Amino acid sequence: MEGEHTHGYISDKARYLARLKRIEGQARGIHRMIDEDVYCIDILTQISALTSALENVALGLLDDHLAHCVADATRQGGEEGEAKLKEASAAIARLVKS
Amino acid sequence: MEGEHTHGYISDKARYLARLKRIEGQARGIHRMIDEDVYCIDILTQISALTSALENVALGLLDDHLAHCVADATRQGGEEGEAKLKEASAAIARLVKS
Amino acid sequence: MEGEHTHGYISDKARYLARLKRIEGQARGIHRMIDEDVYCIDILTQISALTSALENVALGLLDDHLAHCVADATRQGGEEGEAKLKEASAAIARLVKS
Amino acid sequence: MEGEHTHGYISDKARYLARLKRIEGQARGIHRMIDEDVYCIDILTQISALTSALENVALGLLDDHLAHCVADATRQGGEEGEAKLKEASAAIARLVKS
Repeated sequence: MEGEHTHGYISDKARYLARLKRIEGQARGIHRMIDEDVYCIDILTQISALTSALENVALGLLDDHLAHCVADATRQGGEEGEAKLKEASAAIARLVKS
Repeated sequence: MEGEHTHGYISDKARYLARLKRIEGQARGIHRMIDEDVYCIDILTQISALTSALENVALGLLDDHLAHCVADATRQGGEEGEAKLKEASAAIARLVKS
Repeated sequence: MEGEHTHGYISDKARYLARLKRIEGQARGIHRMIDEDVYCIDILTQISALTSALENVALGLLDDHLAHCVADATRQGGEEGEAKLKEASAAIARLVKS
Repeated sequence: MEGEHTHGYISDKARYLARLKRIEGQARGIHRMIDEDVYCIDILTQISALTSALENVALGLLDDHLAHCVADATRQGGEEGEAKLKEASAAIARLVKS
């Protein structure tokens, strides 16, 4: 967990929370489609839409993280700055590979 | 929507429903992480895990769809068979591009 | 290797060969950009374009494969048909996960 | 194009050039497979391998870019720093979406 530093996304928190609520609703919707024996292709279409919505949230969080947490640590310099960059690169790799 | 045909995934419906319940829970978990100002990288890690879980559900549904709906239509032949193949290809493209 | 069966893509072979020639040229172009110390972001832009071009070739080949090799084997039925479907599903999964 | 600044990847240039040479060779190999009417699935396997190789080059370049170009500009601060972060975020989005 991070100390007193406020994360980049905090200034946009309400919007992220609303987006996650929608994503939760989309997941529930897909559950209902399966429960109601909906046609496979229609379910796949919804899963692709949900995956894109998640990707966009991740890209937004990453953008905020780079502009705040990583930028602040980089300005301070030293090991903390390098560690933050390495950590961000690993998160980007996970996102690209998922 | 599909007529009386039973879709490939029906035989595995309980498992798909359980997986979607978990996915819904993961989405709720990410919502809570944002609500509790959790560190950005930890949230991104959970989003990558959720995206992979969704991808695996989609690949399972696609596998079932090819082996049942598409295979049945192909055996019947004619335009229905070709339409099913085109439809499956378009769903695969959406999945690859999302 | 496949016996005397002609693969789906054969009817479109010239176009696929031309597309692969372009892809080879794009790769050579990226090599040259690195050799000439071009700015990182410009190289990344070209890599994203090349990745998309490759994805589109793969989706085309997959579409042809489903419509010919898999469809033919499905019509014949039996283990051969099932094996072809399983094989196609595994290829789709590799494509989605790469 | 970038002025006198040396890009992050320059210190690893020889290795990147060798990787791009291999990628070019992989593309040529896929061209040859199509030319020799090789089975579709075997070609798709090679395309997935090539896509992964390209992704890994992109992630390496991005890592270097963040640790050098973006970090240097961030330390200087002001509009240049913000522009570099925005530019990096856009490149990450293209990579994730391609």
